[in-house]
Amino acid sequence: MREVGIGIAGFGTVGGGVLSILRRHAADIEARLGARIVVRKVAIRHLEKDRPVDVDRALLTTRYQDLLDDPGIAVVVELVGGTTEAHELVMGALARGKHVVTANKALLAFRGEEIFRTAVAKGVDVYYEGAVCGGVPVIRTLREALASDRINGLYGIVNGTTNFILTAMEERGEPLQVALAEAQRLGYAEADPTLDVSGGDAAQKLVVLAQLAFGARLKPDDVLTEGIEGLEPADFAWGKEFGYSIKLLAVARRCAPDGAPGSDQIEARVHPAFIPSGSLLARVRGAFNAVVLHSEALGPSMLFGQGAGALPTGSAVVADIIDLTRNILSGSPGRVPLPPAQPLVSLRPHAEIRCAYYLNFTVKDVPGVLARIATTLAQRRISIAAVQQREHQIEGAPVPLVIVTHLAREADLHAAVREIDRDPNTVAPTKLIRIESV
Amino acid sequence: MREVGIGIAGFGTVGGGVLSILRRHAADIEARLGARIVVRKVAIRHLEKDRPVDVDRALLTTRYQDLLDDPGIAVVVELVGGTTEAHELVMGALARGKHVVTANKALLAFRGEEIFRTAVAKGVDVYYEGAVCGGVPVIRTLREALASDRINGLYGIVNGTTNFILTAMEERGEPLQVALAEAQRLGYAEADPTLDVSGGDAAQKLVVLAQLAFGARLKPDDVLTEGIEGLEPADFAWGKEFGYSIKLLAVARRCAPDGAPGSDQIEARVHPAFIPSGSLLARVRGAFNAVVLHSEALGPSMLFGQGAGALPTGSAVVADIIDLTRNILSGSPGRVPLPPAQPLVSLRPHAEIRCAYYLNFTVKDVPGVLARIATTLAQRRISIAAVQQREHQIEGAPVPLVIVTHLAREADLHAAVREIDRDPNTVAPTKLIRIESV
Repeated sequence: MREVGIGIAGFGTVGGGVLSILRRHAADIEARLGARIVVRKVAIRHLEKDRPVDVDRALLTTRYQDLLDDPGIAVVVELVGGTTEAHELVMGALARGKHVVTANKALLAFRGEEIFRTAVAKGVDVYYEGAVCGGVPVIRTLREALASDRINGLYGIVNGTTNFILTAMEERGEPLQVALAEAQRLGYAEADPTLDVSGGDAAQKLVVLAQLAFGARLKPDDVLTEGIEGLEPADFAWGKEFGYSIKLLAVARRCAPDGAPGSDQIEARVHPAFIPSGSLLARVRGAFNAVVLHSEALGPSMLFGQGAGALPTGSAVVADIIDLTRNILSGSPGRVPLPPAQPLVSLRPHAEIRCAYYLNFTVKDVPGVLARIATTLAQRRISIAAVQQREHQIEGAPVPLVIVTHLAREADLHAAVREIDRDPNTVAPTKLIRIESV
Repeated sequence: MREVGIGIAGFGTVGGGVLSILRRHAADIEARLGARIVVRKVAIRHLEKDRPVDVDRALLTTRYQDLLDDPGIAVVVELVGGTTEAHELVMGALARGKHVVTANKALLAFRGEEIFRTAVAKGVDVYYEGAVCGGVPVIRTLREALASDRINGLYGIVNGTTNFILTAMEERGEPLQVALAEAQRLGYAEADPTLDVSGGDAAQKLVVLAQLAFGARLKPDDVLTEGIEGLEPADFAWGKEFGYSIKLLAVARRCAPDGAPGSDQIEARVHPAFIPSGSLLARVRGAFNAVVLHSEALGPSMLFGQGAGALPTGSAVVADIIDLTRNILSGSPGRVPLPPAQPLVSLRPHAEIRCAYYLNFTVKDVPGVLARIATTLAQRRISIAAVQQREHQIEGAPVPLVIVTHLAREADLHAAVREIDRDPNTVAPTKLIRIESV
């Protein structure tokens, strides 16, 4: 039986999952491939650390270089993380004509262009299903199933940590800190949750998805990024009353239909959004991920599943290894093209984004306040869809006033809010949450 | 630029979609493939019929044989439908070493074994993403993304016609005939809706999915199949009260965990089922399709989208054509294996299926009726989870009595219901709807 040798760099959660799946399903995989996948080396940082999965000590090395130097390794599986060592390893593998499987979204978001260019030049493959949404086959679907289609919009819940927190806040009315502590206790959030909570992780994933979906060339900093830090139980309570859930959405979409001016521009943004509570995305609970695609021929479609964890992400990595092995066995590397070398779309300036907005003003209960706010919005061509003002609870206390707008231009909206926030009758900065009908 | 010639047989809804997508996205497809897909012939039944898409008359032929005889055609796209002409065409193409793309679920459900065996023997590919759930990439996901995983259960809404009808019945309280007439008026149901309404179409699709998911070799008749004909507004009303939606589910699942006795057996069934109304599947409305997969590594996952129509199904067919073209260009046909030649699982007898059931009895309002029913169920080891008996509206009229059971064996349940229906206090046959927690 033919053999394809692989080397695995990094032996944390996902590495353990990959090894256990390869071992457990070895017979099935061999039967399907007509070949054997052989792990020739596993590179780790510390030889003595306890591992969740047993591995032959003779395979272990602490030098990534050993994977590059081994001529019996055709595929390097990069599970190191970060963008320094991982970058060096991946570029080293490509330079030696080895194929790469990686689950490293940051690496592809920050250095994807160089990596893809080098892979094409060397005639080798880079597969990365595990880099975004774990085991949800979104990369494969964008790359292959939708090769015949034109994608117009992509709306994702791509960060399980924040979705776990938002689900707890929505269903149990918990404040953020309580829900976050619970997520940390259960292992859904890290000790330092900044990258997740700030939306930074989701922005990296959006960059990787937009490469494939639109042929975009963005950096994570290009994405308009707002985290969930400012969300309060009162926001969820308002949503509940008006039929909305709150999700941290990653959105990339074309600004105009095919052929129209601006159709080669996309918006790219990550932020909390109210979405209709009856929608499929609103039903994505806990640490799960989902991506909704709007494409020309297929219309709306959705992929849903576990976005993280040893086995879900491990299964995506092993599916990539199997796919690459097929390419190697049939002599067809480069079978499916990587994201295009030249960007096919440009980024629309964030100021030009058009959304509906929920605006939560905290104002003094004096005559003329609503009139002034409404006038300021009207002067900026922002049209009001709904207003909710409650009677105040305590005499003389500021009252919360919620206004929902029709579609408005981001720059106009921010200008209006700045003006309203400067007014002496506004006693706290206005809170703004976008509304998406996805 | 290299060219790959294809021949299309059948020029109805899907054929029109395929041609219009190929034409509209020709430049994108060429850029991605580095090759051109050229339609060399289109075989149709009637030359004179009006077509939704213009096509060069020189390409048209009324003889399927012309596609087989043309050495410039490497891929035959079968959109004829049915299992007679389509079978002849596909077998003829395979015999000549041509690859096949088909959107014909019936052909694969009834004659898949022969087709797959011949394709393997001839070293050519058969791709069929369009055969099940239109543009939803479930075939590709089962074949490739989950190649590293072991699927334990598959739960699908795979028939858009019935889902459209059930959505209308649930949301508007309509009786079946009204919802069906509306579906016909809008083109979601055919003039003769039997195949859809009876569950027969879903059973064919389940057979095709089970080939890939489990390596099963079933015929449509092997599937326990019940249609939606018996559903009434009262069933939906009960569901609404107790938090359930009704969906026509196609279910295939292993009977035991991996390694346990019976793990090489699957249940295969299509029937209406109560499912929790908060679940993702319950939110699949109108003519949409969705498939939930439970697999060992990935856990639960779902694919959702449009299951029919010129462009959704056309996009799946074109994605297959592109994939096949890649195989041809890279000299790697047979890259992804077809369903295994030998069945890997057997069918568990339907009598042994275990489900929870909703039982709706129509009984006389006399003392001892509930006691007798409860006793009959207990004697068959059927445990009661909930009971609902309403006061009757009209003195002396029969009362509806609903009992929900815990998991029970299908054969025991039917035996108990037969016994209860023979009782003189039972005035109408008992209605039975399965309950799934998916």
